[in-house]
Amino acid sequence: MEITPIARFEGPLKSKFGIPRQSGLAESLSGRIVFEQEYRNPDALRGLAGADGFDRIWLIWGFSAVPEDKAWQPTVRPPRLGGNVRMGVFATRSPFRPNHLGLSCVRILSVAPDGSEIRVSGADLMDGTPIYDIKPYLPYADCFPDAAAGFAAEAPEPALEVVMADGVESPFSPQEELALREVLSLDPRPAFQDEPGKRYGMAFGGYDIGFSVSGTCLTIESIVKI
Amino acid sequence: MEITPIARFEGPLKSKFGIPRQSGLAESLSGRIVFEQEYRNPDALRGLAGADGFDRIWLIWGFSAVPEDKAWQPTVRPPRLGGNVRMGVFATRSPFRPNHLGLSCVRILSVAPDGSEIRVSGADLMDGTPIYDIKPYLPYADCFPDAAAGFAAEAPEPALEVVMADGVESPFSPQEELALREVLSLDPRPAFQDEPGKRYGMAFGGYDIGFSVSGTCLTIESIVKI
Repeated sequence: MEITPIARFEGPLKSKFGIPRQSGLAESLSGRIVFEQEYRNPDALRGLAGADGFDRIWLIWGFSAVPEDKAWQPTVRPPRLGGNVRMGVFATRSPFRPNHLGLSCVRILSVAPDGSEIRVSGADLMDGTPIYDIKPYLPYADCFPDAAAGFAAEAPEPALEVVMADGVESPFSPQEELALREVLSLDPRPAFQDEPGKRYGMAFGGYDIGFSVSGTCLTIESIVKI
Repeated sequence: MEITPIARFEGPLKSKFGIPRQSGLAESLSGRIVFEQEYRNPDALRGLAGADGFDRIWLIWGFSAVPEDKAWQPTVRPPRLGGNVRMGVFATRSPFRPNHLGLSCVRILSVAPDGSEIRVSGADLMDGTPIYDIKPYLPYADCFPDAAAGFAAEAPEPALEVVMADGVESPFSPQEELALREVLSLDPRPAFQDEPGKRYGMAFGGYDIGFSVSGTCLTIESIVKI
């Protein structure tokens, strides 16, 4: 089946590095679902926002950073198992799957009256990600709090305390800085990579964020406009 | 993006008529996710079943009963609003959407050791439906019990009492008959169609189920092998 993007995601994370590993983990991280011209229609969003509307939506989107012709593998190594245990691809949410479809539940912040965009928070989508469908979140059909979930039963805890080195100036709004700190606290480093003093760079909202990690403390060492 | 079915759904409902309107509404309704040859691999399901496995999975599937070239409409008329109020397509789970993708959460009953199929219950999929992705259900990322959900906040209650007319013999197992009764109790008739005495037919598990509805009572009048 051929599917066509109805919208693109616009958010502060411009590369894979730093993307939270599920939706909802960085609740302050906001972004915009910007509709393609053909699907830009306020009628298509009628009933979504407002007093009798919905708090949350599902996004079905494409793992656009995975090459389309990449062959699928039956097993993958989930980061939360340290990257050294293999699980079946259908027991994980890994991007490396037969069809490159992602699924995320995000909170609606606002819907543009002209139908051009939806502002959301909590997304785990890279800037530019194609979105193929938007569905309302229905607790009665979608919510199973007691469902057993094997190795992924608990939410990953924020792993790191985030501090700003002396002399580093934040160019961000308080909300943006909160989102940045949430993203960094989740530890964006590759699984089980622990090289004290190593300098990492993450693209965030038009800036390169330079940081290093020592123990459970992450220090932002520089914020440089890209 | 071109997506390819990884599996087909096999279940008792052979036509659109009678398909529950969300997953989970007919919890006893069971079916099988049968993998296509290329994706039939027990390794791909490693970690899904068993003591440390998952209770539920998401299915991303195709509304195969909607013609591929059917033009999308910005608004649809949800059955639960009586079929006479228009809502934005992205505020509903209607099949008539730009990309014909469905999303369902089903319970895992068993996983075949040879990786050929997963038995599930609670699906709202027609027999033969193509399945494009399977993901584990993660309560921490997927469960938001208090999310407002507008006109679809509450689960539709089973609307009808189901009785079998004198002389009708059930060819089904107790489990199959329970599923049949669940499906019928949800009222498969088109929205707000109330024609006492009218005879309906529904294909279920190789049989044509003839029934009529009077008030809140549905009577199974015949069960005939197709």
